[in-house]
Amino acid sequence: MTAEASAQGESGAAERVCPHFHAAIELVGKRWSGAILSALTEGPRRFGELTQAVPGMSDRLLSQRLRELEEEGLVERTVEAGAPVRVSYSLTEKGADLSPALGELGAWGRRWLA
Amino acid sequence: MTAEASAQGESGAAERVCPHFHAAIELVGKRWSGAILSALTEGPRRFGELTQAVPGMSDRLLSQRLRELEEEGLVERTVEAGAPVRVSYSLTEKGADLSPALGELGAWGRRWLA
Repeated sequence: MTAEASAQGESGAAERVCPHFHAAIELVGKRWSGAILSALTEGPRRFGELTQAVPGMSDRLLSQRLRELEEEGLVERTVEAGAPVRVSYSLTEKGADLSPALGELGAWGRRWLA
Repeated sequence: MTAEASAQGESGAAERVCPHFHAAIELVGKRWSGAILSALTEGPRRFGELTQAVPGMSDRLLSQRLRELEEEGLVERTVEAGAPVRVSYSLTEKGADLSPALGELGAWGRRWLA
């Protein structure tokens, strides 16, 4: 509190982080969500394929994240007719448009975390 | 479990998400971390300035995140001599190199979440 009060006094109004950036990073950065989105950039995937693509993620969490990403309009769930019925997940236009951002982040990871 | 077993049988080995991408998104996407990094892309900031830049984040969490980002080598803490002693935070080369990724994510946020 002291640090805050003192900096406010010194610097006046500090620049706010862009709220749209902040919303974007909190959405995409939620645990497992980025990895799921990244797996889907290659094309539609079934549930089990996503489980394999992201090691360590439980089925329960994958279901939950897919529902959240559907609600946010990033992922689309398609039920293919036939027996057995098949369900696949793909990126919407909004989700696919994340590709440059995810690509840059992957490039950074390969430069600095490899 | 059924879905998983069935997809494994159908598709064989699914492509794994790049582990460096995954590590990057889990690092940068951790709650508040992206916003703190984004605030620092404008230049060095004091603790109180960061508090103001990211509304809703407690001092306790900001301290914790700054320590984590220091440990990961993304943020540098500088103590400026003088009375009172002043502490500022800035991006390291590794942290600054996130700028294209954060920029793309912000652009996406402004396109789709604004």
